[in-house]
Amino acid sequence: MEAKLTQLKALLGEVMDLSHTAAVLEWDQQTYMPPDGAEDRGNQMATIEKIQHVKFTSEEVGKLLEDLRPWVSQLDPDSDDARLVIKTQREYDKQTKVPADMVAEFAQITSAAFSAWQVARAESNFAKFRPHLEKVVDWKRRYAALFTPYDHVYDPLLDDFEPGMKTAEVKAIFEALRPQQVALIKAISERPQVDDSFLHQPFDEKKQWDFGVEVATQLGYNWKRGRQDKAPHPFTTTFGIDDVRITTRFMPDFFSSAFFSTTHETGHALYEMGIDRQLSRTPLADGASLGVHESQSRLWENLVGRSRPFWEGFYPRLKEYFPSQLGKVSLDAFYKGINKVEPNLIRVESDEATYNLHIMLRLEIEIGLMEGSMVVKDLPEIWKTRMQEYLGLTPPDDARGVLQDIHWSNGYLGYFSTYALGNLISAQLWERINADIPDLSDQIRRGEFSALLGWLRQKIHRHGAKFEPQELVQRVTGSKIDPAPYIRYLNAKYGEIYGL
Amino acid sequence: MEAKLTQLKALLGEVMDLSHTAAVLEWDQQTYMPPDGAEDRGNQMATIEKIQHVKFTSEEVGKLLEDLRPWVSQLDPDSDDARLVIKTQREYDKQTKVPADMVAEFAQITSAAFSAWQVARAESNFAKFRPHLEKVVDWKRRYAALFTPYDHVYDPLLDDFEPGMKTAEVKAIFEALRPQQVALIKAISERPQVDDSFLHQPFDEKKQWDFGVEVATQLGYNWKRGRQDKAPHPFTTTFGIDDVRITTRFMPDFFSSAFFSTTHETGHALYEMGIDRQLSRTPLADGASLGVHESQSRLWENLVGRSRPFWEGFYPRLKEYFPSQLGKVSLDAFYKGINKVEPNLIRVESDEATYNLHIMLRLEIEIGLMEGSMVVKDLPEIWKTRMQEYLGLTPPDDARGVLQDIHWSNGYLGYFSTYALGNLISAQLWERINADIPDLSDQIRRGEFSALLGWLRQKIHRHGAKFEPQELVQRVTGSKIDPAPYIRYLNAKYGEIYGL
Repeated sequence: MEAKLTQLKALLGEVMDLSHTAAVLEWDQQTYMPPDGAEDRGNQMATIEKIQHVKFTSEEVGKLLEDLRPWVSQLDPDSDDARLVIKTQREYDKQTKVPADMVAEFAQITSAAFSAWQVARAESNFAKFRPHLEKVVDWKRRYAALFTPYDHVYDPLLDDFEPGMKTAEVKAIFEALRPQQVALIKAISERPQVDDSFLHQPFDEKKQWDFGVEVATQLGYNWKRGRQDKAPHPFTTTFGIDDVRITTRFMPDFFSSAFFSTTHETGHALYEMGIDRQLSRTPLADGASLGVHESQSRLWENLVGRSRPFWEGFYPRLKEYFPSQLGKVSLDAFYKGINKVEPNLIRVESDEATYNLHIMLRLEIEIGLMEGSMVVKDLPEIWKTRMQEYLGLTPPDDARGVLQDIHWSNGYLGYFSTYALGNLISAQLWERINADIPDLSDQIRRGEFSALLGWLRQKIHRHGAKFEPQELVQRVTGSKIDPAPYIRYLNAKYGEIYGL
Repeated sequence: MEAKLTQLKALLGEVMDLSHTAAVLEWDQQTYMPPDGAEDRGNQMATIEKIQHVKFTSEEVGKLLEDLRPWVSQLDPDSDDARLVIKTQREYDKQTKVPADMVAEFAQITSAAFSAWQVARAESNFAKFRPHLEKVVDWKRRYAALFTPYDHVYDPLLDDFEPGMKTAEVKAIFEALRPQQVALIKAISERPQVDDSFLHQPFDEKKQWDFGVEVATQLGYNWKRGRQDKAPHPFTTTFGIDDVRITTRFMPDFFSSAFFSTTHETGHALYEMGIDRQLSRTPLADGASLGVHESQSRLWENLVGRSRPFWEGFYPRLKEYFPSQLGKVSLDAFYKGINKVEPNLIRVESDEATYNLHIMLRLEIEIGLMEGSMVVKDLPEIWKTRMQEYLGLTPPDDARGVLQDIHWSNGYLGYFSTYALGNLISAQLWERINADIPDLSDQIRRGEFSALLGWLRQKIHRHGAKFEPQELVQRVTGSKIDPAPYIRYLNAKYGEIYGL
């Protein structure tokens, strides 16, 4: 049995090598690839992904899993080997359920949908995207049907990003969250607005870069095992536990963009860098889910990076970088400025307090489309109505409304809620961390992050993808994903800033 | 049959995608990879190369080739399809002849040999490398034996880099060349040396970069289809016809290093960028051989970039970049300085006139080892004796002697002569080009390279690997590879510079 396990690990190692190789191709495409290289790169990506799929869904893997099952059931259920076989079996069952021609069809649908979306958004013309989105939804409904019986038709989609999570759970969480977030935003809107004009000045790119690197280093990012490059849309990517790279982008006239992008991506990277080496080159060398991943990025970006103690420590240093821009701005004014709440039509430009409402709108639409209670042609109107209801805004056109995000054109239905779940988990962990490290604020004020990072490594990072997200959160905090800590966090923080 | 050809092309397309993907992994390793990423990268490279080998040597490819053979024999023998099948068959026969366990053994031998060579060179201790080199030679002799009958035991090694080339041909060429090069160097050594001290001053890296980019652009390098990055050992790499990248390195106190590296790599890149798009994603989308490839890099580096007309055009511009360093240096002094001939112990630091002698020494040793007329343990002594004979120098240690090059530790026996063949071919082409474009010198003086590049594209580049090197040179120049033009070129150029 040991030999069969070794054989399985060797096969999975090659699958992981292919996955990491695809990540290198993608990273290069987003950072350095010359413009005309796209066609060749498309061929390379398609070939690598095809080989990876064929290798992972091979009969050889299936047979090894089958042989190992009885043996695994006698192991400690929390052991790496038991979890590896269980996780692999789960993924194998999912991937082998989808016929090859359906996989190929999906690639064609989304390739055309992406091109159509680019044109539709540029022209703010939903009609050009509509037939493609209809095809995506139709495919996703056929995809979901492969996984009957399910509790909810949206479950199989959600499961692709949040393993084990059910639509009913997410709905319950969001229904508890929505009225409270709407009420908070309303209360804020009735108070005098904070000033953040000093953030909108020229900030030298090189200095922005250096300050970001200095902070990432202090947070614990290891430059021998990673690097930062520029990319149009910042992301973190993993080529192995010892090569986890981040990217950022710079706005010459706005401080927050690059800095909070760097802290966000550093949070993702610290997760990947902290996975137990024993799990290297296995499917367990990954985050538990996109939501848990996002909890790490949001924790470092918001709960650390947008906190008062953090800037009590770092603001004097930042002023050394930008004396003419910030010399006369008080710490209190700076802290309020970087936490300004202002409803925004665009999700990716939204603040902590309003962001989740963007997600809820998208989740409602995705569930509606899958259930059949909504149809694609009505989306522009639904979007406008709900944006007004949640944020008090009405998009002047579909480019700044239903067409703003790339995800659906790529076939990513089931993905959006992970962003909001990440926010919730981050606050839930934060309460636990502060209970375990009572002087955390003082440590952060002093620029000491090793106890915090150590806690996250111990409780979250090292486990990789051994546990499903709800199980992991339950183990660490004592309860499943719960919106209450996030609400408490928002109310306390913004109550103080806006004097509610 | 058309369907079978399409099927073969689809398979070869995937093999090429894997090859280009491996090139991306390698490029990243040499340019941007963080130090600790090496182990993960090693796994990825091994997996991609293994899959590529398995796919190319599959029975499916063999069967398609067999089925296509009779059909191909009725095609125009110069057609792309005929050449594709012939070239693929040739490579397939070679690769399938080597048993899988011998391939694996070679990987182990060279991996250990490379580590041992690094230590041996650092300590200048040949004894530490000797047993590993003996294993490499032993493996290569067993490898050659797989290809019996051959004319010469070295032929199978040479064929890996110069398809179709025979040891007897290379020996005849080099035997004609050696006495003439030795005589030239002797004559130069008896003349007053030229001054190149002005090249050894501080040259700002950013300005070196900008001037190099300006020249590469003017030579015809297309930045939409490539880019330049820094790497410790400059190289050119191809991810597809539309993504051909160059690298360079900078010495802060020496002008020639980065500049001539950039023109050299630009020459390689122009070749790859000029391959007919019809050959894309096939094994014909490659250089004809390493020697022909080197002829292109040397042509742009030396026959263009170290020529008087070139600097008659570019020297005023270079002075604008470096007025304090070169303001008082005349064009004539500059031209002579960049062409200074001085025997050097180190191959990669050698000039045009002495370089080939380094190659001849290595070729004699490689042939001797394969024939059995030399043994590994005698190499340090042989090296010293022949260096004295050819260049009048005796290495003070083996690090600057027999241990200086990486190639043998990587198992590259059969490779070195391609460097010298490239020099010879470049001069042979140059005579033909000047006959076809009588005012070429004037064009170069004016910074016009389009006629030259057009000629090379038409005669060499577009064909990719359709023709074997001797056939290609014969088609273009009317004779096989011939050392006479190179000797004429050296004698004329250095006769003028040194007043012989």
